[in-house]
Amino acid sequence: MPTQPIGDLVSVYRDALLDDVVPFWERHSPDPDRGGFFTMLDRSGQRYGDDKPIWLQGRAIWLFATLYRLVEPRPQWLELAQRGREFLDRHAFAPDGKMYFSVTHDGKPLQMRRYVFCEVFAVMAYGALALATDDETAREQARRCYRRFVEYITTPGKIAPKIDTTTRPMKGLSPLMCWLSLAEMMRGIDPTTDYDTAINRCVDEILTHFVDHDRRCVLETVAPDGGIVDGPDGRVMNPGHAIECAWFMLDIAQRRGDGTLVQRVLPIVDYALERGWDTEHGGLLYFVDIDGRPPVQLEHDMKLWWPHNEALIALLYAYRATGEQRYADDFLKVHEWTFNHFPDREHGEWFGYLHRDGSLSTPLKGGTWKGPFHVPRCLLLCWRALEALPASSAR
Amino acid sequence: MPTQPIGDLVSVYRDALLDDVVPFWERHSPDPDRGGFFTMLDRSGQRYGDDKPIWLQGRAIWLFATLYRLVEPRPQWLELAQRGREFLDRHAFAPDGKMYFSVTHDGKPLQMRRYVFCEVFAVMAYGALALATDDETAREQARRCYRRFVEYITTPGKIAPKIDTTTRPMKGLSPLMCWLSLAEMMRGIDPTTDYDTAINRCVDEILTHFVDHDRRCVLETVAPDGGIVDGPDGRVMNPGHAIECAWFMLDIAQRRGDGTLVQRVLPIVDYALERGWDTEHGGLLYFVDIDGRPPVQLEHDMKLWWPHNEALIALLYAYRATGEQRYADDFLKVHEWTFNHFPDREHGEWFGYLHRDGSLSTPLKGGTWKGPFHVPRCLLLCWRALEALPASSAR
Repeated sequence: MPTQPIGDLVSVYRDALLDDVVPFWERHSPDPDRGGFFTMLDRSGQRYGDDKPIWLQGRAIWLFATLYRLVEPRPQWLELAQRGREFLDRHAFAPDGKMYFSVTHDGKPLQMRRYVFCEVFAVMAYGALALATDDETAREQARRCYRRFVEYITTPGKIAPKIDTTTRPMKGLSPLMCWLSLAEMMRGIDPTTDYDTAINRCVDEILTHFVDHDRRCVLETVAPDGGIVDGPDGRVMNPGHAIECAWFMLDIAQRRGDGTLVQRVLPIVDYALERGWDTEHGGLLYFVDIDGRPPVQLEHDMKLWWPHNEALIALLYAYRATGEQRYADDFLKVHEWTFNHFPDREHGEWFGYLHRDGSLSTPLKGGTWKGPFHVPRCLLLCWRALEALPASSAR
Repeated sequence: MPTQPIGDLVSVYRDALLDDVVPFWERHSPDPDRGGFFTMLDRSGQRYGDDKPIWLQGRAIWLFATLYRLVEPRPQWLELAQRGREFLDRHAFAPDGKMYFSVTHDGKPLQMRRYVFCEVFAVMAYGALALATDDETAREQARRCYRRFVEYITTPGKIAPKIDTTTRPMKGLSPLMCWLSLAEMMRGIDPTTDYDTAINRCVDEILTHFVDHDRRCVLETVAPDGGIVDGPDGRVMNPGHAIECAWFMLDIAQRRGDGTLVQRVLPIVDYALERGWDTEHGGLLYFVDIDGRPPVQLEHDMKLWWPHNEALIALLYAYRATGEQRYADDFLKVHEWTFNHFPDREHGEWFGYLHRDGSLSTPLKGGTWKGPFHVPRCLLLCWRALEALPASSAR
């Protein structure tokens, strides 16, 4: 049982953020010639590819604008966010307004996907800039991307379904999670519009349709009315996803002072750890079949960096909301496994992909999915939450 | 250095095929109610899902029709193939003639994909039935699926490209490999049509555009003229794919008595082992970056069953063609690792997905991709090739 007082960790999170992780990305990621961010970086920060994934452009802009606003107004952070935003403005949008999934280093279109997740990170990027600089154009761009995202996910057939919905109607957790988090962000930058209705709808739909208290799990895919979908797709739990969703809602509950919502969300945190924590090797599994049938994702038992980031935030927020020692203990358990396995002591930043036993699978620091986002967001949010704990509870 | 005479292995391959692997699928895979094959089978053969992936319907039909023709005319094998074919006829084709990727157990459409690989396995299924029974309808269905496949892969834009071809023109190894193997099959069942032109075209294009002798590798993706594609996609080698491609061509060379082709193909076998064999843990890696940059596929260093199946066939065919002891030695090396790690001694058949260190990742026996195909095809082809070795060379 870990016994370290968690209040002692403030400087661990702050120093990792400001002295290690952010400098790694500042040094290696920005493209000085074209703007935007390179993210295909090897262990030492050297590029192994020049393409620019659009998810990560938006996420990087969010990070630097948010550091500028919440940590300190360093001009270089704002400039990085603004140069990223120029690249996004210029190269990320197809003629019909939908966003590309990836473009070349000089902005030529490479891939368009069916989904609208690039739009999610664009809302975060423009929204963070609007919050940091009160820029009306950024605010309007955030609004526009938000409206487009909502239109896509709420209009049946607007995103061509992967699985024939006549044969097997179903819905996923991801769009709702994203909607929830974007509506909460937009609420803070656009007081002229009602976002609370969307927030309440997402919270209720997630808690009533995707959380299964009988089986103590959170499902990734359910029937439109929340019923069970037959087969492996209907049994998948992604513990990192579930626990990320939990902290989105704990954060909303904190803002609202809504203790009832806290109590409704806490089971998700418990289920994610019950289902996801690997009792043999430690760390959080990537995918779990909730009936113990054979997982079908090849990477199911790998340990990815980001579920650990989300778990740290969620456990700290659960502790902040309840003061229950078990959440502090679990936070320390996850903290220790995470900091013992992911950070690269030699070249900085964190590795992203470990085998089940904790050994390294690939040494890359960034790619299409990993970039300047989950690690620094976790370090920033945990640092601030740890700092804000009352001294008496920071045991 | 292995010293077992490989001729002694005839019974190992035959017994594994007839007493273990085929019975597993006969027992657990056929759907007695609707026809077709269940493939989502756990370790003991119990179903964890009822959907029917179309690739595997075609592959299973191919297997049972081929066993009937090449091993012995057991009526139950022909009946399984024919009941599978009825399911395929009835449920695998969309109204426009393109094939679904998966359907429900009772044949309702689930997923349509851009690619035409279902058509590949349909040609194999109908073709194997035509060979086994001289059925004119099956022959005509094989012809029709073949023509459709060729039309799709040779008509620019007919398959919507994943990556914008204006920005980055490129082509993949998979369609050519499939075309090569289908044309060779069709040649045997349809003497009225010229297939040799297609075979020669595929052989030349693979050998001149995808095999890189300077870097001693086979690429999955190249520029349309065979040039290098920048970035991780252009550096991917899939050793199992490469070595499968090699035995397709060694088989053609054997039929033709074409020693020159043998010599042109053998480097692929060498490169696949040089690049793919894991000198630390043994076994073949799934994906390799040929410049040693960080692999981007999460499953890159897993050990999958099928590359080992393909390597065994290719090494045996290389030995058959050359009599060079090093191919027999490599065959034994791969044989030993494969038979020590993949077969399930308790419930029969083989596991499919191991971690890099050879430990089990998931205990499933079948799924969307693994079914009654690579293992029994390998056992059958190796059994026959081992049996046909001259006694003096079967050292």
